[in-house]
Amino acid sequence: MNNPFDITILGTSSATPTRSRHPSSQYIKLDGHHLLIDCGEGTQRQLLRHGLRAGRISHIFISHLHGDHFFGLPGLISTLNLNGHREALHIVGPAALQEAIELLLRLSDVTLAFPLHFIPTQTDGIEMVYETAECKVESVPLQHRIPCTGFIVREKTAARKLNREACNEHDIPYQAYESLLQGADFYRSDGTLIANAALTFPGRKARSYAYISDTLYLPELSKQLRDIDLLYHESTFDSSRSQRAAETFHSTAAQAAAFARDCGAGQLLLGHFSARYRETDILLEEACAVFPNSRIAEEGMTYSPGGSAV
Amino acid sequence: MNNPFDITILGTSSATPTRSRHPSSQYIKLDGHHLLIDCGEGTQRQLLRHGLRAGRISHIFISHLHGDHFFGLPGLISTLNLNGHREALHIVGPAALQEAIELLLRLSDVTLAFPLHFIPTQTDGIEMVYETAECKVESVPLQHRIPCTGFIVREKTAARKLNREACNEHDIPYQAYESLLQGADFYRSDGTLIANAALTFPGRKARSYAYISDTLYLPELSKQLRDIDLLYHESTFDSSRSQRAAETFHSTAAQAAAFARDCGAGQLLLGHFSARYRETDILLEEACAVFPNSRIAEEGMTYSPGGSAV
Repeated sequence: MNNPFDITILGTSSATPTRSRHPSSQYIKLDGHHLLIDCGEGTQRQLLRHGLRAGRISHIFISHLHGDHFFGLPGLISTLNLNGHREALHIVGPAALQEAIELLLRLSDVTLAFPLHFIPTQTDGIEMVYETAECKVESVPLQHRIPCTGFIVREKTAARKLNREACNEHDIPYQAYESLLQGADFYRSDGTLIANAALTFPGRKARSYAYISDTLYLPELSKQLRDIDLLYHESTFDSSRSQRAAETFHSTAAQAAAFARDCGAGQLLLGHFSARYRETDILLEEACAVFPNSRIAEEGMTYSPGGSAV
Repeated sequence: MNNPFDITILGTSSATPTRSRHPSSQYIKLDGHHLLIDCGEGTQRQLLRHGLRAGRISHIFISHLHGDHFFGLPGLISTLNLNGHREALHIVGPAALQEAIELLLRLSDVTLAFPLHFIPTQTDGIEMVYETAECKVESVPLQHRIPCTGFIVREKTAARKLNREACNEHDIPYQAYESLLQGADFYRSDGTLIANAALTFPGRKARSYAYISDTLYLPELSKQLRDIDLLYHESTFDSSRSQRAAETFHSTAAQAAAFARDCGAGQLLLGHFSARYRETDILLEEACAVFPNSRIAEEGMTYSPGGSAV
């Protein structure tokens, strides 16, 4: 069975909230790591409503400094502090974010009882912004009205799995298992070799998730991204408003789908909808015409790369 | 019939939101004026959910700079701007608020298309912070961990009403009606006087609403306030936690009720509940034992001074 790699959608509105939608935020659970991407106003309450523990989050990735992507951050940090949080929290995002958060915490008389680290992003090129033994996160420059990056969350290639039957047949000593799992061949004491592939199965495929919001349609970028199992791409407008999309540095649903097709994504999640769309059928239709495996991101739903909604 | 004087409760949580409660905010409709008191995170969405138009608000009163009372302000202002708002918006609150809001708007690339005026409050004494022909708002110093004021919203004494029957009997010319409504007596051309009271009825009583949050229990203040028809008083804790209340500069429900009793309030609304109270029965019981006309403020409900929930 795969380790958990779950993305829970907390907000799908663009710019302003609506009666039924919240501004952008997503909670990611990956192999014991808990990450948040973007933190629009109301994110702390969305976490509560969907039974997700804010205290587990170690890293928050902020795409850009439009309010609908970070105005929930000071409240979330304040609440963590009030609730006795003690572990370090890392904020990955545009450098200017630090000044804003520090001013707000100072004004609101918050003395943090945990370390708060800021890790600035840049928009010159793809960059690794977080790495553990199990996963890594890269920032990806997008093109919006202000500096903006997307994020790609990747599992690392997993260790191979032991073929216990084959190991027993070949009388492989336990002491050799660890090196087998790392891909080494086995040498008997007489010097003969048993190939690794005869003693192990391949590990699971390393899955990946890409968060691309907010941006102009970037066909060049789609060619640089590879092996994206699940792609969240903003689709603020339908095709009839493609000029408005270009003017505001946003994408249409069809452009999101073209991006998914061109980067060979497994599945496309549409989100960041303009408040004008009470129903999103038109966006889904237009996306599916270009990339059939498209779906609407629903708030409160959990999606997995390579899987369906949980 | 009285003119509308409605208070819609948008948030009743203290410090942190809960699954069922939002941080502090209240929308006041008074004789054509639309005011907001406090603006915790998520207020703009609460306005939407309860069918209240943010664009009508001319003045926002912020009690103090703890995040649960103002972290919704930058988002609300940004959304007004995106939605084409053009009328001036006045923010009444602690002076340092201006720096925070201006920084956040600048960082989030918002160029306001409407004038934003900041009116600083102080905590030296009661002060008029807003006045029109129909109403006035005073700020009232409270005692919290940081500078904090409550607000008293008062209708002005309304004009008297014409007694048309008496006016006809006495052959009063139309031209005299306006001065009669202002309380003047009527003089015939022969110099004889008809007293105003014989030609008019008293105007309606000028109603008042007081918002007292967040504060230590202030028995001295309760003696200064008079003619409060509806009092919202924070009741963060129950009596068993009175020490915790004092340490954190908050009040218990019984203290809120004592305040209501001592200022001769018509009705008490309890709010600003600690997240520990999933049910508020204990708070209501303790308040009613001291001041029977107490009730729990419910989010989304509208209350009127001198009236019941709408």
